Amino acid sequence: MIIDVHGHYTTAPRALEVWRNRQIAGITDPAARPAVSELIIGDDDIRETIEGNQLAQMKARGSDLTVFSPRASFMAHHLGDFQVSSTWAAICNELCFRVCRLFPDHFAFAAMLPQSPEAAPATCLPEIDRCVREYGAVAVNLNPDPSGGRWTSPPLTDRHWYPIYERLVEHDVPAMVHVSTSCNPAFHTTGAHYINADTTAFMQLLQGDLFADFPTLRFIIPHGGGAAPYHWGRYRGLAQELKKPPLAEHLLRNVFFDTCVYHQPGLDLLATVIPAANILFASEMIGAVRGIDPETGHHYDDTRRYVEASGALSPAQKRQVYEANARRVYPRLDAALKRRGT
Amino acid sequence: MIIDVHGHYTTAPRALEVWRNRQIAGITDPAARPAVSELIIGDDDIRETIEGNQLAQMKARGSDLTVFSPRASFMAHHLGDFQVSSTWAAICNELCFRVCRLFPDHFAFAAMLPQSPEAAPATCLPEIDRCVREYGAVAVNLNPDPSGGRWTSPPLTDRHWYPIYERLVEHDVPAMVHVSTSCNPAFHTTGAHYINADTTAFMQLLQGDLFADFPTLRFIIPHGGGAAPYHWGRYRGLAQELKKPPLAEHLLRNVFFDTCVYHQPGLDLLATVIPAANILFASEMIGAVRGIDPETGHHYDDTRRYVEASGALSPAQKRQVYEANARRVYPRLDAALKRRGT
Repeated sequence: MIIDVHGHYTTAPRALEVWRNRQIAGITDPAARPAVSELIIGDDDIRETIEGNQLAQMKARGSDLTVFSPRASFMAHHLGDFQVSSTWAAICNELCFRVCRLFPDHFAFAAMLPQSPEAAPATCLPEIDRCVREYGAVAVNLNPDPSGGRWTSPPLTDRHWYPIYERLVEHDVPAMVHVSTSCNPAFHTTGAHYINADTTAFMQLLQGDLFADFPTLRFIIPHGGGAAPYHWGRYRGLAQELKKPPLAEHLLRNVFFDTCVYHQPGLDLLATVIPAANILFASEMIGAVRGIDPETGHHYDDTRRYVEASGALSPAQKRQVYEANARRVYPRLDAALKRRGT
Repeated sequence: MIIDVHGHYTTAPRALEVWRNRQIAGITDPAARPAVSELIIGDDDIRETIEGNQLAQMKARGSDLTVFSPRASFMAHHLGDFQVSSTWAAICNELCFRVCRLFPDHFAFAAMLPQSPEAAPATCLPEIDRCVREYGAVAVNLNPDPSGGRWTSPPLTDRHWYPIYERLVEHDVPAMVHVSTSCNPAFHTTGAHYINADTTAFMQLLQGDLFADFPTLRFIIPHGGGAAPYHWGRYRGLAQELKKPPLAEHLLRNVFFDTCVYHQPGLDLLATVIPAANILFASEMIGAVRGIDPETGHHYDDTRRYVEASGALSPAQKRQVYEANARRVYPRLDAALKRRGT
């Protein structure tokens, strides 16, 4: 079985974006605020946007199940206040949940959080509870920078975030650390902000001792861990200078990297440097880079080809990367699969 | 000959830091402001801090000449106003120039700029002129984020920066894109801010068309190019989506990466993905990571070992990386070496 832990509903029906644009207009013009009930998306609309896109690609590429969450760049936590984020998160989460209910063999739900720059993280707890209990969420996406490229929040190791961690531990769901759109012109969203956030989060975790307080908390750092594996020597050396234990002990019981690295040498480096137990298969397909690589004739984000071709992973390690690690890191996914006899 | 294009005077005599601390205190308390004449550093002080440190390491590791600039993390352009930065840059540049004059066979001077978040880039021109004409500077360090982790400046492709580029082109000196200390608690200086800045700068250049306006402008992106080589497929794909030419044509005539990647697999990736003509040998020794790697028994920043051991570079390509590329990208260095018959 091949589990892709990183998929977003980037192909949601256009009505969603139209509604969101009205909601954004309503931030400054209350008369323009739409009611939630004005957004109507039928099951057939959902089926159509999935069957010809993610599901078709999954079948073509040979992956079986995708951990599926709302479109990351559309979370835009920096817009409006908590109420705006809360309404938007509820809508997006319900929509992704419906995808997973319509295609239960192929999608497992992960929730976005209703974060807002000025709101305390504890405001996210009701949505976490709802998504886990009612929608069967197997993970959440946690945005370390709800300001959208201004980086006004404290590091992930700060007690500021602890209410969220306590709840994640209680539900035994991991968090993928994933930012949203950059509203800072210095940072291109998918070319700089995403990758910087991954690197930043990793270094925050390295500097701190968060997992002493939360030994069972688990983070997935997407996009191959940003720059961390490429600069693994730098990070091993910085850990040494900061008098931290070796990274395997300090971080790798709790921190995992996905395989969203869009060329063979990058995936090979990841698989060479990071233990196989810490690598989770993922593609973020129909995401940041949708084109076909002229050097290979295949989609850049067809990451299964790189895993298959990598000499750095044994067949047993590939099985870990494809399935076993995801089932270990996402225990609610494992439980759901077992209930279905898989 | 082995040229290391990335060295900072991290071992400057303690008097420099003492003076700087008084200058910083003087930002809020004018009575505390020190006069420039109060900073006294003799040639013997300089010799001592170089001979036992950088020069000893260069000899031990087999590099011949270092392009040497003021300590990057001490530039701290976010502190005070232009006058503070201007005085500080003048002092630091003169001190590095003196190192190069005392050890002309081993150090070539690169200047820091007196950047300040609120000051127009044109305010840096007199210091550029002075450093090139009087101190023989072969390069400058350009900080894309003088705010120190707040990222308030426009992208490097913005006309905001053009006055500096015009002057660099006129003098035919390249710029290393190098940030300073982060004053944003989200970003560890050497573990996140440095690497993020490299990634950010690369993506800014990818998004724009700066080299159409400045076909002879040259940038060195340090620390192995941040995350760019590891995510080279992502960047090739983003260039494609943004309707830019292939990266070789769009950027690689003007953008170069150094070898400050502190482990073998990282250097191997760099050498596999980036053409040898775009890789410049560098170590940033006695810098961010000063320890000894227990996995190798050698300093993390002894990057020559990684270049030597890399099967991805032929002997001829190693000579390019060690010398020929630096002489091409830093023509004033080449001219100075030729004047000395090397």
